[in-house]
Amino acid sequence: MTGDARSWWGWGHTSAALDAAETEALVSRVAALLPGHDLTDHEPPDPRSLGVPASRVALPQSLAGLGSDDVVDRLGHARGKAFRDVVRNLQGDIAHVPDLVVRPRSEQDVVDVLDWCTASGTPVIPYGGGSSVVGGVEPRFDGPAVTLDLALLDRVLEVDPVSRAARIQAGVLGPALEDQLRPHGLTLRHFPQSFEFSTLGGWLATRAGGHFATLATHIDDLTESLRVVSPAGTGESRRLPGSGAGPSPDRMFLGSEGALGVITEAWMRLQQRPVWQRTASVGFTSYDDAVAATRAVAQAGLYPSNCRLLDPAEALINAGTTTVGGLLLVAFESADHPVDAWLDRALELLRDHGGTVLATRGRDGSAPTAPGDPDASQAWRSAFIRMPYQRDALARRSMLVETFETACTWDAFPAFHAAVTAAAQEAIGRVCGGLGVVTCRFTHVYPDGPAPYYGIYAAGRWGSTLAQWDEVKAAVSDAINAHGGTITHHHAVGRDHRPWYDDQRPAPFAAALRAAKSALDPAGVLNPGVIV
Amino acid sequence: MTGDARSWWGWGHTSAALDAAETEALVSRVAALLPGHDLTDHEPPDPRSLGVPASRVALPQSLAGLGSDDVVDRLGHARGKAFRDVVRNLQGDIAHVPDLVVRPRSEQDVVDVLDWCTASGTPVIPYGGGSSVVGGVEPRFDGPAVTLDLALLDRVLEVDPVSRAARIQAGVLGPALEDQLRPHGLTLRHFPQSFEFSTLGGWLATRAGGHFATLATHIDDLTESLRVVSPAGTGESRRLPGSGAGPSPDRMFLGSEGALGVITEAWMRLQQRPVWQRTASVGFTSYDDAVAATRAVAQAGLYPSNCRLLDPAEALINAGTTTVGGLLLVAFESADHPVDAWLDRALELLRDHGGTVLATRGRDGSAPTAPGDPDASQAWRSAFIRMPYQRDALARRSMLVETFETACTWDAFPAFHAAVTAAAQEAIGRVCGGLGVVTCRFTHVYPDGPAPYYGIYAAGRWGSTLAQWDEVKAAVSDAINAHGGTITHHHAVGRDHRPWYDDQRPAPFAAALRAAKSALDPAGVLNPGVIV
Repeated sequence: MTGDARSWWGWGHTSAALDAAETEALVSRVAALLPGHDLTDHEPPDPRSLGVPASRVALPQSLAGLGSDDVVDRLGHARGKAFRDVVRNLQGDIAHVPDLVVRPRSEQDVVDVLDWCTASGTPVIPYGGGSSVVGGVEPRFDGPAVTLDLALLDRVLEVDPVSRAARIQAGVLGPALEDQLRPHGLTLRHFPQSFEFSTLGGWLATRAGGHFATLATHIDDLTESLRVVSPAGTGESRRLPGSGAGPSPDRMFLGSEGALGVITEAWMRLQQRPVWQRTASVGFTSYDDAVAATRAVAQAGLYPSNCRLLDPAEALINAGTTTVGGLLLVAFESADHPVDAWLDRALELLRDHGGTVLATRGRDGSAPTAPGDPDASQAWRSAFIRMPYQRDALARRSMLVETFETACTWDAFPAFHAAVTAAAQEAIGRVCGGLGVVTCRFTHVYPDGPAPYYGIYAAGRWGSTLAQWDEVKAAVSDAINAHGGTITHHHAVGRDHRPWYDDQRPAPFAAALRAAKSALDPAGVLNPGVIV
Repeated sequence: MTGDARSWWGWGHTSAALDAAETEALVSRVAALLPGHDLTDHEPPDPRSLGVPASRVALPQSLAGLGSDDVVDRLGHARGKAFRDVVRNLQGDIAHVPDLVVRPRSEQDVVDVLDWCTASGTPVIPYGGGSSVVGGVEPRFDGPAVTLDLALLDRVLEVDPVSRAARIQAGVLGPALEDQLRPHGLTLRHFPQSFEFSTLGGWLATRAGGHFATLATHIDDLTESLRVVSPAGTGESRRLPGSGAGPSPDRMFLGSEGALGVITEAWMRLQQRPVWQRTASVGFTSYDDAVAATRAVAQAGLYPSNCRLLDPAEALINAGTTTVGGLLLVAFESADHPVDAWLDRALELLRDHGGTVLATRGRDGSAPTAPGDPDASQAWRSAFIRMPYQRDALARRSMLVETFETACTWDAFPAFHAAVTAAAQEAIGRVCGGLGVVTCRFTHVYPDGPAPYYGIYAAGRWGSTLAQWDEVKAAVSDAINAHGGTITHHHAVGRDHRPWYDDQRPAPFAAALRAAKSALDPAGVLNPGVIV
């Protein structure tokens, strides 16, 4: 069983939730920022007292040992971990709880479960770590549903140290994956914020974005081959470093979010652990300058491992740094060579664009080499990992705390950013009386554009925060679509993004995808409502 | 009209064919290598004397001005430019000549032609520069066919210098594309061997591989968005630097080889022209060492622009350099910074793996900085561009001269290479009496494997060289599939690679692709026989 120490209603491990001192510090900081907001704590309900209906589904005898109808297990799998999921859990909303949680022990179990689902017409939701923030794992439809939790398929099966690749089962969580690679001196080096609570299969099915700010950032680019079980059959692509043989077979399943098949294994490209690392924090007095400087680095062919531009609000809230124009965290790493030449040129470019180097750090976290902000990048990193736990503490106190992310071209960014920020602020004004903050950081940068990641912190009303957030989300999503962004850069589409996804998807591709879905899942049982 | 100066039967411009001195030098070199081979020259036939049947197809009045039924025009579009195409042309084989060559002047013309083809059930072959070496543009089926030559859609429509991208029509040939970008200080920097005679749309439809040995080598990675006309409708993906919204819409059309739709435009990612370039030639005394050294560079995160390992036969024939273990051409380039630190580290790695630096060169082709081979990389580059013309001269003299290309993991490479080489040599022995050479170079290298490119030079018999080559090709293709390679890394599938492509393609993906084809091309008129 997974989930012993996992929160059924909120993020992560119950033991890792904010302690009393952290909570007090957070609450007093928010109280200072949002004077007058009611910060009463609302504890989560007892899941066994919510009246979750009994399961309507029974597996056939041959598969019965795989299923769990435990109420807390089912509730814990009913939703992902978005703000709106946490709020609904806190309010005891028990709509759409799966009837069974099924945990296959082998790929054959996956085949058998899909066969039974297809024959019986029972919808089935492939489930990795359950960290979806887009409604990707929620049976948001009437009638029975089973959740297929791949947690037991958690092994690294084979390692090829020469090509630096490994065959890995899809259900493995991030830490267990890295633990199994470590003895080989190798790493996948894919560290999304959800790293502890998301799986390889989840990353693949949602085109997750990871550690690196440039080059291979999406999990797509780390994928050598995929093994997929669909109701129409099982298939595996060849292990190839590159190919031009027809449209990429893997790219049809990457991002298919469980609607076309269940990814059971993948050969993933690995790396040696970095030996050399250098990091710098660079401050700006103008945000326009900071954006231009970041673009210069993104287009220089230097390929930093980190290149995160925090706007002033983000720098203040999450890195504790006061800047007028923003803070850029830039880093280089290598397992092969010192990266000084790379960082030196990046800093030269940043200075040419009005940046001031606040601090640089070496490989082993040694003392900063410049005065000023002592360790903004470290402060930001710690905050990053703790953010979802803080989000939960604030959700209990009637706050709206959520993020949304996108990507657009550099050319479009100024107007895009102004429109999205204005839409967020207008919506916060309308539904929250204006008590709120919108922040922005770039999580990834490409030669042709950034991936901006926005944070919203606003004062809600207990009992209304779900509806309030949904209004803000609709407003910003409309702005994203109207100004040339994508509705998601790496959080996936799920059920929450469907209207905007459908709007941005080219019609011929939609027709092709619907046809592919019918061929692979003729009974339409795979994650209904997602993608097609 | 295109094609005024284009050879109807062979490669490129008729004016660029080998001159008398070049021909004599080539022939005498071959005569020395293959003593006893009959090198009689067989001139191409007069295309108007071949008895090509009259066109069986007439466009409707509204489109009539777009079509040409000229015999030489039709013959020039009947095939690509593979060895087997050239041989068939030289022998006056006129099977499967398209009935009309249709040249749309606008995207609406493309829509109208596809509508008419769908309504009348007339197969239509999208055609770029016609440089296919895999039977991709040949109406290899009974009944009428029209070829849709996009040559008139040859404009750069829009340039975004901030994001470094341009909206470009699909029918533009490489040189015209670069000519239009040059005033903006930008370049696509995609230079396949076919550069002069292939188009953006062709590169996209076949997942072409270009200039760079590492990072963005396939045209896929240079693509920001695509505009596609299919019989089921027209669609355009958003311009995005990255996205995680469902399976990539572009990746379904990249590599679709005209079977799912006609690419009419694309937004492509561009670069500044390089200012700093450094190149080195490194010799080895052991091929195993050379492979290990190349792998070390490919896995070091240095990302050379060139990293071509020529085996001893390739180095001798095409770079004029004698080595026991092979010759590595490695280069770095940048528009932003000197690349000395990059090259220095690469050379250090190569020396550590037994390499000897023969020469290095700077940006402007200045004198070599080391003794030894004065300019192997330049010699190889010139030979590279002239190779297809030499191939034609040799095809006229009963030689088998052809290439095939693939990719595999580093782990698999030694056994793979041995098996493929043995299969080629066995087949040459069987069908050519053993008079022949097999060469290998790496065109691209990835962290997890190389893309080997093989050359075959063998003595054939006039009238039998097609059948002889087909036997060699089948033998090497079987070996490629049996030992974990891909049937094509960047030449595409076409009709020639179909059996091996079908064998390597995962069954669920094949089912999905067939369904997508039916949805987009319900009458099945788009390039029948290709991909699905």
